[in-house]
Amino acid sequence: MNYTLKDLPERTQKPRQSGSTMVMDKGLSLREVEDFLSVSGEYVDIVKFGFGTSCVTPNLKEKIALYKEAGIPTYFGGTLFEAFAIRNQFDDYRRVLDKYGMEYVEVSDGSIELDHEKKCDYIHKLADSYTVLSEVGSKDAEKIIPPYKWIAQMQAELDAGSWKVIGEAREAGNVGLFRSSGEVRSGLVEEILTKIPFEKIIWEAPQKAQQVFFVKLLGANVNLGNIAPNEVIPLETIRLGLRGDTFMEFIKAETIAFK
Amino acid sequence: MNYTLKDLPERTQKPRQSGSTMVMDKGLSLREVEDFLSVSGEYVDIVKFGFGTSCVTPNLKEKIALYKEAGIPTYFGGTLFEAFAIRNQFDDYRRVLDKYGMEYVEVSDGSIELDHEKKCDYIHKLADSYTVLSEVGSKDAEKIIPPYKWIAQMQAELDAGSWKVIGEAREAGNVGLFRSSGEVRSGLVEEILTKIPFEKIIWEAPQKAQQVFFVKLLGANVNLGNIAPNEVIPLETIRLGLRGDTFMEFIKAETIAFK
Amino acid sequence: MNYTLKDLPERTQKPRQSGSTMVMDKGLSLREVEDFLSVSGEYVDIVKFGFGTSCVTPNLKEKIALYKEAGIPTYFGGTLFEAFAIRNQFDDYRRVLDKYGMEYVEVSDGSIELDHEKKCDYIHKLADSYTVLSEVGSKDAEKIIPPYKWIAQMQAELDAGSWKVIGEAREAGNVGLFRSSGEVRSGLVEEILTKIPFEKIIWEAPQKAQQVFFVKLLGANVNLGNIAPNEVIPLETIRLGLRGDTFMEFIKAETIAFK
Repeated sequence: MNYTLKDLPERTQKPRQSGSTMVMDKGLSLREVEDFLSVSGEYVDIVKFGFGTSCVTPNLKEKIALYKEAGIPTYFGGTLFEAFAIRNQFDDYRRVLDKYGMEYVEVSDGSIELDHEKKCDYIHKLADSYTVLSEVGSKDAEKIIPPYKWIAQMQAELDAGSWKVIGEAREAGNVGLFRSSGEVRSGLVEEILTKIPFEKIIWEAPQKAQQVFFVKLLGANVNLGNIAPNEVIPLETIRLGLRGDTFMEFIKAETIAFK
Repeated sequence: MNYTLKDLPERTQKPRQSGSTMVMDKGLSLREVEDFLSVSGEYVDIVKFGFGTSCVTPNLKEKIALYKEAGIPTYFGGTLFEAFAIRNQFDDYRRVLDKYGMEYVEVSDGSIELDHEKKCDYIHKLADSYTVLSEVGSKDAEKIIPPYKWIAQMQAELDAGSWKVIGEAREAGNVGLFRSSGEVRSGLVEEILTKIPFEKIIWEAPQKAQQVFFVKLLGANVNLGNIAPNEVIPLETIRLGLRGDTFMEFIKAETIAFK
Repeated sequence: MNYTLKDLPERTQKPRQSGSTMVMDKGLSLREVEDFLSVSGEYVDIVKFGFGTSCVTPNLKEKIALYKEAGIPTYFGGTLFEAFAIRNQFDDYRRVLDKYGMEYVEVSDGSIELDHEKKCDYIHKLADSYTVLSEVGSKDAEKIIPPYKWIAQMQAELDAGSWKVIGEAREAGNVGLFRSSGEVRSGLVEEILTKIPFEKIIWEAPQKAQQVFFVKLLGANVNLGNIAPNEVIPLETIRLGLRGDTFMEFIKAETIAFK
């Protein structure tokens, strides 16, 4: 930090179990990755190559190497897992993972109907060789999953070997954890937290108001995902109470100089 | 492509008559153009310097050269043609086109009232020396042009020498083809397609939901325009069914591994 | 300019008292600053490091130097002043300003309750050593300040030594001068202008429709702020009437070639 202020919340340090920021890269160039890391590298814990973008970006191998050099693991968006699985090409997917030296993998069912036991089976198989992130929630705004099911699925996926579970929101933040307006389904979130430890969850929260909601509810060191590369620094100020939205969140009563 | 999946739609190759992506550059630096092309170059067919931005960007000559080197033609937004035409400076406009070695030109009437015969006359004159794109639709959200008029104008402009016709949407995607909410005027689109060959039309579709609409209606190889530079890779995944929105679009029934 | 059009409004030149563009940098890398300045440098008058981003960007010193080299002054967002003031760390703040060689400083009360006399006192103290920008308006959408109070506060702050006063809007453009929908509180703006000289005010106007409103009301040379770096060139076309929204604004009746 460039200067010292009283009562800033303490941030966790890498490798973080909580307080992680997961970023979505949906097609950065190598130089853009360098630029991004030069500013935000220390605040980024893991990078997702969104949906199927890894298929069509010509710089993939070099880009993975750049992130690796910076000590930041990467993984392919869950939609890619689903694209292989639905085509009965799961073995091909493992070959792709190994070709690119991926150490993390996402298992999701946002776009497919996947029997939940079968999903856990995929998680279990992959957990032998990779660190698995699994995602709960549909990309279909019409499909409302009730809280008890979110909890049961999250627990089953952790039991099957997931390192962390992700709450679905898409790039736009308008499904899964959120209503189509972007508003948080706060009852859902609170119910989940009665059962699943908060450090095991990454909340996709691409919109500022969503990030603010989670920092207010769970503090500076909540795990947040689907953050755009150029929103990592602004998010860090939200976590620290250095932006209007969370400005009074962390200041102790005795510190306040005037009302 | 970095790996192979069954049932991906076949994409056309450059020079594309259909399946083109037209990008709006509204002020990129030279290095940003290099970055953009390093990732998206093979998916970009033509670049528009949006509205009057070409007047105030100091790097214009060098930028045109960069795109030319990459084999990507550029043109000035139609608003610039209109700015010269309304001031009775059409001859000056031709001199500007030639000073910058432009091979493509857009003729539009989104901000001016231009008699349609006169518009076709401009197209006819310019078609001798340039490849002409002409645009139909008003930038004024209040001006609703009925479908039969869209068709008559598009046909007349193609007859006058336009290479392709563009359906207006603006940078924001909230006029012309779309309601102010961004929703597609789908009846209009379908009626246009009963008369005008789909490869002759570039649909401006800056919003994701709009791109999805056109890919679902017309397939991977629809011509789309006003795409932001950093949305070309995401669009490519929409075209290929590698994003949630078009995920099941191209998979054959016999390929599907599970329901 | 790359070519000449009749009836373009004359833009002021640097150092501008009116017609200024204030840009918000919320975490650019050094190379992104270079890119930005290579295109937009001559149109940018002052750069704000938004809210508390200056605390967490590792390249701060070098970035300030880059802007300085280009002749563009920088300052820290008012939220940072407030973060120090509320913690009774005002003297620390002055040390931070001096450590980074800042010549401009913002005083605001968007996130704190600050007695207005005390605010003017801060302005007065800082005006000895720095050029002060002070901001009027709350970041809280619920706190509606009536026009007469805006005027009284603006006048008092100018009297206390502010170089210019800023009308609050946040990065999103949805508070202060604007309704939560982003719509301009036009009555408020017009009433302010009956009392405060327009060149003393910088209107935060991050959204395009807001920029268009002010250019239509006050002409090409209105001071606008909270402009995103990649929106400076598009804004310049709005100022000049080279974008659809202000297209007919500056053309004289006798110039118009056709109705």
